[in-house]
Amino acid sequence: MIEQQNRRVFIQRHGDGTPALADFGIGEETIEGVAAGEVLVRVDTLSVDAWILTTLSAPGMHETGRLGSTVQAFGVGQVLVSNSPQFVAGDWVYGMLAAQTHAVLPASQLTKVVPEPQVDPRAYIGPLGITTGLTAWVGLVAVGEAQAGEVVLVSGAAGAVGSCVVQLAKARGARVIGIAGGPEKCAYLSEVIGADATIDYKQDDVASRIAELAPDGIDVFFDNVGGEILDSALDNLRPTGGARVLICGAISQYRHLDDVRGPKLYLRLAERNASMRGFVVSHHAARFPEAVAEISELIRSGKLKLPEHVVTPIDNFPEALLMLLDGKHTGNLVVRP
Amino acid sequence: MIEQQNRRVFIQRHGDGTPALADFGIGEETIEGVAAGEVLVRVDTLSVDAWILTTLSAPGMHETGRLGSTVQAFGVGQVLVSNSPQFVAGDWVYGMLAAQTHAVLPASQLTKVVPEPQVDPRAYIGPLGITTGLTAWVGLVAVGEAQAGEVVLVSGAAGAVGSCVVQLAKARGARVIGIAGGPEKCAYLSEVIGADATIDYKQDDVASRIAELAPDGIDVFFDNVGGEILDSALDNLRPTGGARVLICGAISQYRHLDDVRGPKLYLRLAERNASMRGFVVSHHAARFPEAVAEISELIRSGKLKLPEHVVTPIDNFPEALLMLLDGKHTGNLVVRP
Repeated sequence: MIEQQNRRVFIQRHGDGTPALADFGIGEETIEGVAAGEVLVRVDTLSVDAWILTTLSAPGMHETGRLGSTVQAFGVGQVLVSNSPQFVAGDWVYGMLAAQTHAVLPASQLTKVVPEPQVDPRAYIGPLGITTGLTAWVGLVAVGEAQAGEVVLVSGAAGAVGSCVVQLAKARGARVIGIAGGPEKCAYLSEVIGADATIDYKQDDVASRIAELAPDGIDVFFDNVGGEILDSALDNLRPTGGARVLICGAISQYRHLDDVRGPKLYLRLAERNASMRGFVVSHHAARFPEAVAEISELIRSGKLKLPEHVVTPIDNFPEALLMLLDGKHTGNLVVRP
Repeated sequence: MIEQQNRRVFIQRHGDGTPALADFGIGEETIEGVAAGEVLVRVDTLSVDAWILTTLSAPGMHETGRLGSTVQAFGVGQVLVSNSPQFVAGDWVYGMLAAQTHAVLPASQLTKVVPEPQVDPRAYIGPLGITTGLTAWVGLVAVGEAQAGEVVLVSGAAGAVGSCVVQLAKARGARVIGIAGGPEKCAYLSEVIGADATIDYKQDDVASRIAELAPDGIDVFFDNVGGEILDSALDNLRPTGGARVLICGAISQYRHLDDVRGPKLYLRLAERNASMRGFVVSHHAARFPEAVAEISELIRSGKLKLPEHVVTPIDNFPEALLMLLDGKHTGNLVVRP
């Protein structure tokens, strides 16, 4: 007989499109059993990702979570009790553990974390995470086909995905320009992450800075932000053709998902023989082993770092989520319950 | 000694972004000589294309023409006098002849029209024209990679490019839905051009009609229109991934090029693993021979028709151009000077 208290963050209210603290509730429940095929997991670390913001109110990008349901989040944890032959107690697992201290899930919904030598299991919500490092790799490499010698521009560059994109692009021989908000983040990009150049969107005229830093145009734009920054990049795509704009996210628009600002300069795609490519990371799962191998090697050789910005305990998950909107973190924003 | 009167339409005024008749002037001049390497061409037929609208005022897609310059337009004509070994009098040629009755151009800027058997030289500003049939082919085939069995949606389907896209997609085994304005154009699409289904954007709720006609989603959207129609298509891209949105033009936006409405639903690209691809036709010139062979064969076998909507004489070129904005023509809008 198991008796395990679980503390969780749930959807209390469907907001008006602008995520707010009042949308969330905190509750406790007692987990009393683990059915056949299920496991009980102690949540170790949760990835605080922008996509979660799009599940809170009706007009979002993803399916909206129902009232009372635990806020979705990917995480890593350790199996406490297993009622499945797939796992034993102590195993590290990865999956949609959700914003809570303990999760009971069908074993089939979890992946065993088998870290590469010298790689921390927590890397699976960091540089090896599906919503972080693998998103960066799939966007930049599988979808974006970034090549050595190309100019890669990254928005939201000081975030988890952005930090990985900058370092992956550098490792692949591209020239990388990172856009972030404020001098501290720009210093982080130059000094910790190794961007070739930075643009502070709070200070600089973004479009003219891009033009200055990349006078022949941008080959790849990896966009986490949307809005005016997306237009500034579109206006600076390489005029001779072949540029790719990768749509990963649009954090600038997540306060008003019912009224997203579309890119006014989307006709630059037609004028400059360019493309805008969206991607669902899981559609590219066949290439994950290649991505994991490349990223693990970069971690081991010290060429890929992803500092964590840790928020704790679970009750502060909503605050952490809203930090994304204000860009209040640097690196990989996580919650340790 | 040559003395040839030329009547031409020139840019009289750079408008405010909304093309108007007052932007154009009509003038006459005497052509008095043909320099070495040049030819004098009698303009037979001019292609009235939407891109021309984007050259008239400052914030356009293309370089704005200077005041006094002849309005740009592709056309076919016959050489009257040649001062180049490349051509002899009587040759049919294709090129940027511009909105005038006669053109003097360097021979290097002209292409000799060598029609396939049973194909009219005028097809070179119609189904074989770079701005019409080849634009359709490059977008649909080279860039869009449309496949048999896919669902292809076409906006501006009753125009020159749209009519070619519908028929090329049909010939390649796709299921084709055409969007046009009014019952006459929809009848043209069904009865002359052979679309499988039509949507009248002046009558129907476009988004819900697409959903009804393509319940599993659209694979390819060939867009000539932009604005709300583009958003309606984005909202109906195949959810399982791989859809392509081809950005050919945006006639709904050419009255206010300084304030284009960007696609509000561009994040569907990210949610549905889809892409939006622009193209410059000339960048795909290496594939023109393949396109010409395919289109010529379809013309000969009666599977590709492109009725002309003829405006005459040259003085009415501005009126013809503005007809594009109001969708007042069906098929290939041309001017015979």
